[in-house]
Amino acid sequence: MATLVVDIGGTKIAAGLVDPDGQLLYETRRPTPHSDDAEKVWAAAESTIVDALAAAGGRVDGVGISSAGPIHPADGTISPLNISAWRGFPIRERVSAAVPGVPVRLGGDGLCMALGEHWRGAGQGAAFMLGMVVSTGIGGGLVLDGTAYGGRTGNAGHVGHVIVDPNGPPCFCGARGCVEAIASGPHLAAWAREQGWAGADAKELADAASGGDEIALRAFRRGATAIAAMIASVAAVCDLDLVVIGGGVAKAGPVLFDPLREALGTYARLDFIAGLQVVPAALGEAGLVGAAALLREPGEQTQTHPTRRG
Amino acid sequence: MATLVVDIGGTKIAAGLVDPDGQLLYETRRPTPHSDDAEKVWAAAESTIVDALAAAGGRVDGVGISSAGPIHPADGTISPLNISAWRGFPIRERVSAAVPGVPVRLGGDGLCMALGEHWRGAGQGAAFMLGMVVSTGIGGGLVLDGTAYGGRTGNAGHVGHVIVDPNGPPCFCGARGCVEAIASGPHLAAWAREQGWAGADAKELADAASGGDEIALRAFRRGATAIAAMIASVAAVCDLDLVVIGGGVAKAGPVLFDPLREALGTYARLDFIAGLQVVPAALGEAGLVGAAALLREPGEQTQTHPTRRG
Repeated sequence: MATLVVDIGGTKIAAGLVDPDGQLLYETRRPTPHSDDAEKVWAAAESTIVDALAAAGGRVDGVGISSAGPIHPADGTISPLNISAWRGFPIRERVSAAVPGVPVRLGGDGLCMALGEHWRGAGQGAAFMLGMVVSTGIGGGLVLDGTAYGGRTGNAGHVGHVIVDPNGPPCFCGARGCVEAIASGPHLAAWAREQGWAGADAKELADAASGGDEIALRAFRRGATAIAAMIASVAAVCDLDLVVIGGGVAKAGPVLFDPLREALGTYARLDFIAGLQVVPAALGEAGLVGAAALLREPGEQTQTHPTRRG
Repeated sequence: MATLVVDIGGTKIAAGLVDPDGQLLYETRRPTPHSDDAEKVWAAAESTIVDALAAAGGRVDGVGISSAGPIHPADGTISPLNISAWRGFPIRERVSAAVPGVPVRLGGDGLCMALGEHWRGAGQGAAFMLGMVVSTGIGGGLVLDGTAYGGRTGNAGHVGHVIVDPNGPPCFCGARGCVEAIASGPHLAAWAREQGWAGADAKELADAASGGDEIALRAFRRGATAIAAMIASVAAVCDLDLVVIGGGVAKAGPVLFDPLREALGTYARLDFIAGLQVVPAALGEAGLVGAAALLREPGEQTQTHPTRRG
């Protein structure tokens, strides 16, 4: 039987069906409503769930929810920074009511991406792995000793807020010098424009860099250096063997990965992390696949909500 | 019955006895021989073990070894950076031969410090904790979900090599901008001397700072800022609730902890780490106590060496 999966983000809300082998069988999505009304946002999420459940013939073995953070698995609520209508929104209770009688689990989008890549993507076989996304922000999740690591509150893996320059630019989170504030797509493009590049966004910047544009290449090198410093730091602390990088900016390919690996050679010098591998993500929808993987995990970061009719 | 503990460092080698409540009952130490001969270094370690075993009346329930890194718990060998005679030295086999018939476990000194503080010191009751030492270097260990986290190779928790300034000064490890290369005792003192301070070492610098010396205060503030950035980063990734700081430099007290907590207010802004506590270590010999705690841990970072007569 398939697992119903839901992926909640600031741009879109998706639902899907994942089979027991981790294949995404079905997907539907809606734009995330720009609304201050929590119920309007829920209506969009619910409609994706209704469609996915219908596609499954009304029967699924559980629901995995991937959400932008912060999340609160202990009480099943979420407060995504980029969905202002939802603060302490009881997503697990709502989903349980919509899909009664089956376990419902909740994980951060970074953790779900990591779990998806670990199960079916570029992280297969790794036991100590960071999965991360570089797009409009930088996020991630950790698989430690082969299992999801949610941490104390379920929010572990916020690698975008590793501080790589204590005097660096202000970050959305309120700190400064976070790697996200330097190397996310919008920040890469903004820096390049300050240097005189005339393009619009990170996608164009990647095309320009691939075409040899000097400013674009420097922008990616600067971002890659910051990401490499962060990766070396996380690897030294968590003792990792693999980093999988997905997201729109990672699609830039060698203009990101070549300088990143070069900088990693400078920063990852401790012998136990010298062999650290950094590879591109393999799945297009790792978050949905990883949301299904939540139901395969033991441990409290993925508690089962007591179902009322189960 | 007591547990025999051994603490191997570049300056001294200590052995002791720890009772089942985590009290250090006995301790003996030798200077670490400056020798290229692995057997001469072992002779010093063995003599401390012989003395401690005699003090226990010849009977102990196990041996816990804390060692400077890198360590290799998988095969029971150690290669401490600051003991050049020991590269791949088979410490667990040697200790097993000296204390036959009982389990022998090996952990990094940072992990043992964290375990000791978690068991009997300032970390009691914390479930997600970083224990760290600021002295001639900066090291640490992680307790995650209440248990020791050794990572893939047993070397997790190398927080001294979190990179807080990608363009920063070169570090002993070969990288640059590591927090150790900025905020360890010798680096604090060296920076202060460059600014015109006339003292010798970090101990004198702490006294000067406590007495109001402007340069010394600035040196501590600079180091504390780097440590705070590292702590905020590790907390964002590992989702911690407590950081315990020991070591000689931490004995400086408020001149370190006041600016550290202030800087943490700047850097630790994600809601799930906003309540992070940073406190001084409570134990004088957390490493020895923590080495005994290794035998209370499940998990492979502390494998039992198969004993030949057990």
